Amino acid sequence: MLEALKEKVLKANLELPKHKLVTFTWGNVSEIDRETNLVVIKPSGVEYDEMTADDMVVVDLFTGKVVEGKLKPSSDTPTHLELYRQFPTIGGIVHTHSRHATAWAQAGEDLLALGTTHGDYFYGTIPCTRKMTPAEIAGEYELETGKVIVETFQKRNIQADQVPAVIVHSHGPFVWGKDANDAVHNSVVLEELAYMNFVATQIRPNIQSMQQELLDKHYLRKHGANAYYGQ
Amino acid sequence: MLEALKEKVLKANLELPKHKLVTFTWGNVSEIDRETNLVVIKPSGVEYDEMTADDMVVVDLFTGKVVEGKLKPSSDTPTHLELYRQFPTIGGIVHTHSRHATAWAQAGEDLLALGTTHGDYFYGTIPCTRKMTPAEIAGEYELETGKVIVETFQKRNIQADQVPAVIVHSHGPFVWGKDANDAVHNSVVLEELAYMNFVATQIRPNIQSMQQELLDKHYLRKHGANAYYGQ
Amino acid sequence: MLEALKEKVLKANLELPKHKLVTFTWGNVSEIDRETNLVVIKPSGVEYDEMTADDMVVVDLFTGKVVEGKLKPSSDTPTHLELYRQFPTIGGIVHTHSRHATAWAQAGEDLLALGTTHGDYFYGTIPCTRKMTPAEIAGEYELETGKVIVETFQKRNIQADQVPAVIVHSHGPFVWGKDANDAVHNSVVLEELAYMNFVATQIRPNIQSMQQELLDKHYLRKHGANAYYGQ
Amino acid sequence: MLEALKEKVLKANLELPKHKLVTFTWGNVSEIDRETNLVVIKPSGVEYDEMTADDMVVVDLFTGKVVEGKLKPSSDTPTHLELYRQFPTIGGIVHTHSRHATAWAQAGEDLLALGTTHGDYFYGTIPCTRKMTPAEIAGEYELETGKVIVETFQKRNIQADQVPAVIVHSHGPFVWGKDANDAVHNSVVLEELAYMNFVATQIRPNIQSMQQELLDKHYLRKHGANAYYGQ
Repeated sequence: MLEALKEKVLKANLELPKHKLVTFTWGNVSEIDRETNLVVIKPSGVEYDEMTADDMVVVDLFTGKVVEGKLKPSSDTPTHLELYRQFPTIGGIVHTHSRHATAWAQAGEDLLALGTTHGDYFYGTIPCTRKMTPAEIAGEYELETGKVIVETFQKRNIQADQVPAVIVHSHGPFVWGKDANDAVHNSVVLEELAYMNFVATQIRPNIQSMQQELLDKHYLRKHGANAYYGQ
Repeated sequence: MLEALKEKVLKANLELPKHKLVTFTWGNVSEIDRETNLVVIKPSGVEYDEMTADDMVVVDLFTGKVVEGKLKPSSDTPTHLELYRQFPTIGGIVHTHSRHATAWAQAGEDLLALGTTHGDYFYGTIPCTRKMTPAEIAGEYELETGKVIVETFQKRNIQADQVPAVIVHSHGPFVWGKDANDAVHNSVVLEELAYMNFVATQIRPNIQSMQQELLDKHYLRKHGANAYYGQ
Repeated sequence: MLEALKEKVLKANLELPKHKLVTFTWGNVSEIDRETNLVVIKPSGVEYDEMTADDMVVVDLFTGKVVEGKLKPSSDTPTHLELYRQFPTIGGIVHTHSRHATAWAQAGEDLLALGTTHGDYFYGTIPCTRKMTPAEIAGEYELETGKVIVETFQKRNIQADQVPAVIVHSHGPFVWGKDANDAVHNSVVLEELAYMNFVATQIRPNIQSMQQELLDKHYLRKHGANAYYGQ
Repeated sequence: MLEALKEKVLKANLELPKHKLVTFTWGNVSEIDRETNLVVIKPSGVEYDEMTADDMVVVDLFTGKVVEGKLKPSSDTPTHLELYRQFPTIGGIVHTHSRHATAWAQAGEDLLALGTTHGDYFYGTIPCTRKMTPAEIAGEYELETGKVIVETFQKRNIQADQVPAVIVHSHGPFVWGKDANDAVHNSVVLEELAYMNFVATQIRPNIQSMQQELLDKHYLRKHGANAYYGQ
């Protein structure tokens, strides 16, 4: 079942250590098949250098039940599923504890759009969620994590396909994209931005977001009807 | 004697340069055989790329005497032995001067639990010891180092198996675990946390520890009777 | 047409990922043939590991039209052309989003000459441009970027051949040199300076430029009639 | 002439890029033969991957004249010679622009002894020189650099064999040792210390030097009559 997608999700997972986004097993990638509403995701706590396509787990979007696979899916699976349910335009999700994005999560701060590198990929501030409540933590924690992400985007009126990443407070980043590869790509960009924003805020405390006009220019140069970047 | 354990301790030592935790010979790993109360430890000041399993030294837990081995054991051996005597549930110990954990030692500051990466491995603040007294330094220094570590855990009521690391003031980290491999694993995590806490405290000075509820959730998700992470 | 130059520009582009100056496709190198006023430049949005010399695009210095090549030239081409037109002594240009130089761009700050590493290559402050106006951004943006760079050098009375780099505000560095290779070399130096200046300003806030005499000595030791460095 | 020493000095020079202490040709290593008062040093501005033992230059300690070698010696040769003349116990010298040590030079600050890593190699503060005067810069600059280093050690009563490194203001580090290899080893340690001190001072501004007793303990554990570290 979904053999090609399992192979693709395996490869996307293996990209994480290559890009130095994960230590040990701290990360997971999934992709959804929107035709069947099945999600292929990494198994929980398995070493990257031992994983095979067969280890990938197939999960039902709505019930969360394992449809195929001999291993348990990532413990973060309910977070992935909630994002796929609420953000219907996204196709792949990555979760890591990449160093600098996670440091921003620990600090509980948004990642402001400070330059054109940000604007080329993310159309505005990458938000940091509020802290989760004790009730949310004691309840269906991983599902509630997804709900807090969705709430953040709704309350702040951010479009998930224009800002394909979030910083979960005291935790780390979730990043998405058109498919698993695109989500990995955006994860690399996010980590780069998190590092550069760290340095920039040290050089200039109380730094402000870039001009809206420049953000518009760079985002729209690469996205939407009038894009002219690339071939 | 203990040939398999020597091989294991050698390999665990060789993991340190692979994970960039040591420069030159600045680090050592040991493991105890609780049946015989014998400790296998790296020799003192030997290059990593020349070490063999035969170079590992076997030391008696109580007398500190070399039971087997043609080389002198690590000068930090009395620290290791004190920890094995006072923390009966631990099986392996690592000492390094890894860059960021050592910077925290130089600053003389605790490593606060700032996020779930910390909570997945360490159940609360990783303490920094007090400074050693001139008498302790002039006396059996390496043994006294172990005693100050134990004192820190007792006075602050921290369980060694729940917080398997310490920052020795003006020196660097000692880290432990179920066995040598687990202690190396925890050393990698500690260094990662030390780096992320550095960045987070720069972004947000006067940062506070994460919520206790979230710390509980993540630590207990991976440890204890109700753990559900992994296979 | 210009086959040797295409090969040279390809190789210079491939140096960027080797020196860790670019992530994905975020960078481009060009070189001008001053005899024919033709510029060879990297195509837009093509992966570095798939590029061949044939993919390089030949562009006319004055009209900006593609003279040869099946791909679209880098979207930054109008910036390159403006620099070649206004700075007649330069022969190669590099644009990257290298991490630390870009962090300075995000902070909107000049790179002061703080030491002899700087003075060996750049004869004084590497300027950061002003922000671009909404009209410039809405107009021929990439051309206007070049014009703002030239304005910066004119207003501040900086010679392009003595300070072969600029930080474009909220964007990143443009760097040049005698040819493509020299511009890549200067890009590596700039990134190194940007990192060291970050660290130095953290150690000593409100740091000032080095002594003019020492800057003169080091710059003139390697450049001009009385240079005595090298063979 | 001195073929074995040339081979040794070549290899020591090649260690610099391996340890990431130099970019391009920014560094040089020498060693003195105290029997003949001849110094073997790297040629000026030659690429590391093209250097051979034959390229090493033999220079007279007192006259500074080239005794053998077809290339010009490093432009820093007069600094090396002054150090060999004034510090009679040293046998090898390294000069680099390693990133963090150079950042401290740019900040014009001493490297305080903050922990046992420092104390294992350097018996106290690694001093930063005063700025050079316009007359010194306009005169025999490289020789004057050596003189300012010697002055720093004399005025502050520091022993060159106990603190085998200096930070030259607005420039970078010079490091020495028993021979070329030992000087390279100390250069790696210095750079590590420079990084850790940067982090520690960010975590704790106004940090003070470690206790003298602990510094004594660690330095004397590895150096002098009562050393007991190593085999």
